[in-house]
Amino acid sequence: MKHKLIFKIAVLTVLFSCLGTSKMMSQKVFKPSAIKASMLKALEWQEAHPIFALAPTDWTEGAYYTGVVRAHKATGDQVYMAALKNQGYHNNWETYTRLHHADDVAISYSYLYVDMVGGRKDFVDLKPTADFLNAHLYEPDVWKAGKDKSSMGRTILWWWCDALFMTPPVLNLYAKHTNQPKYLDEMHKFYTQTYNQLYDKEERLFARDMRFVWKGSDKDAKEPNGEKIFWSRGNGWVISGLALILDDMPKDYKHRAFYENLFKELSARIVELQPKDGLWRTSLLCPEAYDHGEVSGSGFHTFALAWGINNGLLDKETYLPAVKKAWKALEKCQHEDGRIGWVQNIGASPEPANKDSWQNFGTGAYLMAGSEMLKLQLK
Amino acid sequence: MKHKLIFKIAVLTVLFSCLGTSKMMSQKVFKPSAIKASMLKALEWQEAHPIFALAPTDWTEGAYYTGVVRAHKATGDQVYMAALKNQGYHNNWETYTRLHHADDVAISYSYLYVDMVGGRKDFVDLKPTADFLNAHLYEPDVWKAGKDKSSMGRTILWWWCDALFMTPPVLNLYAKHTNQPKYLDEMHKFYTQTYNQLYDKEERLFARDMRFVWKGSDKDAKEPNGEKIFWSRGNGWVISGLALILDDMPKDYKHRAFYENLFKELSARIVELQPKDGLWRTSLLCPEAYDHGEVSGSGFHTFALAWGINNGLLDKETYLPAVKKAWKALEKCQHEDGRIGWVQNIGASPEPANKDSWQNFGTGAYLMAGSEMLKLQLK
Amino acid sequence: MKHKLIFKIAVLTVLFSCLGTSKMMSQKVFKPSAIKASMLKALEWQEAHPIFALAPTDWTEGAYYTGVVRAHKATGDQVYMAALKNQGYHNNWETYTRLHHADDVAISYSYLYVDMVGGRKDFVDLKPTADFLNAHLYEPDVWKAGKDKSSMGRTILWWWCDALFMTPPVLNLYAKHTNQPKYLDEMHKFYTQTYNQLYDKEERLFARDMRFVWKGSDKDAKEPNGEKIFWSRGNGWVISGLALILDDMPKDYKHRAFYENLFKELSARIVELQPKDGLWRTSLLCPEAYDHGEVSGSGFHTFALAWGINNGLLDKETYLPAVKKAWKALEKCQHEDGRIGWVQNIGASPEPANKDSWQNFGTGAYLMAGSEMLKLQLK
Repeated sequence: MKHKLIFKIAVLTVLFSCLGTSKMMSQKVFKPSAIKASMLKALEWQEAHPIFALAPTDWTEGAYYTGVVRAHKATGDQVYMAALKNQGYHNNWETYTRLHHADDVAISYSYLYVDMVGGRKDFVDLKPTADFLNAHLYEPDVWKAGKDKSSMGRTILWWWCDALFMTPPVLNLYAKHTNQPKYLDEMHKFYTQTYNQLYDKEERLFARDMRFVWKGSDKDAKEPNGEKIFWSRGNGWVISGLALILDDMPKDYKHRAFYENLFKELSARIVELQPKDGLWRTSLLCPEAYDHGEVSGSGFHTFALAWGINNGLLDKETYLPAVKKAWKALEKCQHEDGRIGWVQNIGASPEPANKDSWQNFGTGAYLMAGSEMLKLQLK
Repeated sequence: MKHKLIFKIAVLTVLFSCLGTSKMMSQKVFKPSAIKASMLKALEWQEAHPIFALAPTDWTEGAYYTGVVRAHKATGDQVYMAALKNQGYHNNWETYTRLHHADDVAISYSYLYVDMVGGRKDFVDLKPTADFLNAHLYEPDVWKAGKDKSSMGRTILWWWCDALFMTPPVLNLYAKHTNQPKYLDEMHKFYTQTYNQLYDKEERLFARDMRFVWKGSDKDAKEPNGEKIFWSRGNGWVISGLALILDDMPKDYKHRAFYENLFKELSARIVELQPKDGLWRTSLLCPEAYDHGEVSGSGFHTFALAWGINNGLLDKETYLPAVKKAWKALEKCQHEDGRIGWVQNIGASPEPANKDSWQNFGTGAYLMAGSEMLKLQLK
Repeated sequence: MKHKLIFKIAVLTVLFSCLGTSKMMSQKVFKPSAIKASMLKALEWQEAHPIFALAPTDWTEGAYYTGVVRAHKATGDQVYMAALKNQGYHNNWETYTRLHHADDVAISYSYLYVDMVGGRKDFVDLKPTADFLNAHLYEPDVWKAGKDKSSMGRTILWWWCDALFMTPPVLNLYAKHTNQPKYLDEMHKFYTQTYNQLYDKEERLFARDMRFVWKGSDKDAKEPNGEKIFWSRGNGWVISGLALILDDMPKDYKHRAFYENLFKELSARIVELQPKDGLWRTSLLCPEAYDHGEVSGSGFHTFALAWGINNGLLDKETYLPAVKKAWKALEKCQHEDGRIGWVQNIGASPEPANKDSWQNFGTGAYLMAGSEMLKLQLK
């Protein structure tokens, strides 16, 4: 008896003394304090490991700093705002360079937010963003004109589904911030083009681009199991982009129902496809191809589903268990030092990830998910 | 008996093994090794969390890097010099842009130091600093001319007390480094204007600006308790600025007595107003308004008082207990990861802070305090 | 009995729980996982503590990022590639400014690597490197012309032994990458000039520059013990530079034997001079002058010797014990937080170091050593 007591006390002492900051201790992964601590570590690790594909203004940074925006919006923690101001200042508030490429204005989501919330007049220069958007929407372009002859089907402005994350939320926020509804109408015009081209109404999922849309030929791209190829992150871009759009779209916008319906339809499908362990595989219809959870897609899905609950578009009873399962699994992909692992590299279709693989946009997806988990106010 | 022994050994093992780097262990907060370790963590956290109000050359960075200068001067640790060189290089040794605004040359204190001590000829470009100082002192200006009509009383160049930290130490150091005493005389001219306008001889404290100087009207700004409003950080700017000035002012400078007397008078008053727990409240005469210690003001006071002891201007027996009490309390405001909390945000009058609130200039104040604590050689 | 068991379990629990990431646990310093973890911490600490002598494009950064290149080459870890891309991008892929000074193109080793391996076409701009190399090789110059009259013997382009690390590996890699063998021939021309001037065939070591070459006069520079002055880091530059060169030199290059022979000769001498504790002193022939190991020289030597084993130029049985002894001692110079200490400051001859002294090029040397230790596949 006494021996056991001694042993228990010793062990408890060990646990109490040693595991102070360890993840082992945070059994309560849904507690706001635990979520906040995890998000902060993710931000700090990412800031200490700058990465980009082409430039600090590219879409990878755009997606990452969109996550930082959402983290700031949810927590009010100055650490996020400082990071946002710092990157914007050092980027001279510039977009990346290809004015007709949707990727290259994703970074402006963060610039707009700092201008709206950062508290310093004339600190942000929105001219490069405005110039980009005007060129993007109104200048003639080979893709818009349907004159690109590649196999990728570049016959519309936003010919790949990722684009629906990159530019529409920026147009939507710009329309709101500058009170110019015409940008919202332009967004809708191009958004429906992509929807018409890439949305598979049967599967209720987006093809990444025309290479993955079946034409009824033997050459149609197939998964090993014979299914169509639907990429987790690709659909993550769309569904999380929808949440971003709806968040700032006027409640009475004439086309709002289209986005709400699409959001709900995608949400229902995504939750249906969630693997038991909570994390989506990179291939949604062939999970066995790379049978491990992937964090960028899963982070975007989790953000979207939780946002839907928090904003009354998704039924809490139905969706909450999926969201909780997902966050619990996401949180386990964070290394002790803050790194968010299990992120698929830059790509355009399902590929494997591993424990160590990381990207800034994966950290962004994690921060987005965390920001809505916080608002769920779980215990 | 034996059981108890086993238990004790186990517990001791735990304590010894686990708490290695924990603050819990550093009971001896006055040991140079503990102070150095705490300062280094503060610097490293701040460098990993860049923040500024307008630009990396603004006064917030100016105050922070003044703290880094003092830390380097006290420790000789290359980590501080590397940080100083890195920021100066990336700032192109430029001041911020408003040549008639005292804030915008505060950063040059660090540039001058690197030029004097950094060991590389032609590494620092002092031309922007020289250009600023010449424009600041000699160009016509609406404030100098007394033509500003705002309520703030902008009828002198340095119309707010913070200015006495921002520019005078730079002018003083520039005069010394370039051997041009005329800059010291100019400093004295403008310094006394501010002194005459904002120093309350009865209270022996500085009003922040003319909005806080009583004119005998019902509209005079008052604390809830009826007292005049004297801001802790505002007076911290003045008293720590005085220490910086005296540190590099020629011993035989004709007006040195004025600065020494003011320094001693302020020191006596500041120590009189120190709360029991060691940290000054943001409102010096209405501590109950926000009844918690604030670190930026307290850091500056602690630096100044310790500097006064170390340089024979303040009686050690009288002031040391206050300084020790202050440092002990300051040190508790540092988070485990190095962050200096309890710093009032950017402002112009007493406002509350909290455990998590931080600013680069608060870290600077902490480093300044630590640098003089080190020189006290306590155990 | 039972008591002992309880005690053992408790202690084991403590050890297992608490020492997770501690160095105490990594008894197996040769395990790839331990080496990788140590290298990563070194990189992360260095990235968080940017330092340079003149600019982020100078030779100190050149040597550091050469270490980062080798770390990436050995591990494939994206953390290294991200750091390489980040610095190159922010440096605009520029060299430092003195086109006739070998130091100022060392940084291009990293640019070339990113261009070859980084995976993004047109991401790297090699024009500044090409311009530098052409000016360096083909423009008239006071040193090349033998017209410099200083005591340093600047009568050849690469008049100091460090230069053999700074430019030859870049020329060699540039020749390979752009398929222009003429740059290799130019390298050989200038390399042999330096060899003829500074290589002491009797001592089989390089003098740092002509000030250290004995002319048979009383004024010849001597160590306190009467020996010639041979600097550990100086010879480290040469021997590690040779490994870099041989790594990318065509197997059938007409002068390859010259480099292989020199490499083997130097290796034999360096291992002969290794102190018992594994780390070379800053003065190779007067180790007692500053009787402690120094990490930058030792890191370069360790890299070279391990590279020689890994590439079949050095006999494993003979050299492996020395390499193991060296790495074991190097690894102990790393602080808990990742800092690589015991690095001699910037200099040109033997000077002491200490536990805390660090430089980016010291971290670079450590990463180089680690990268070849990994390839030894020890356990």
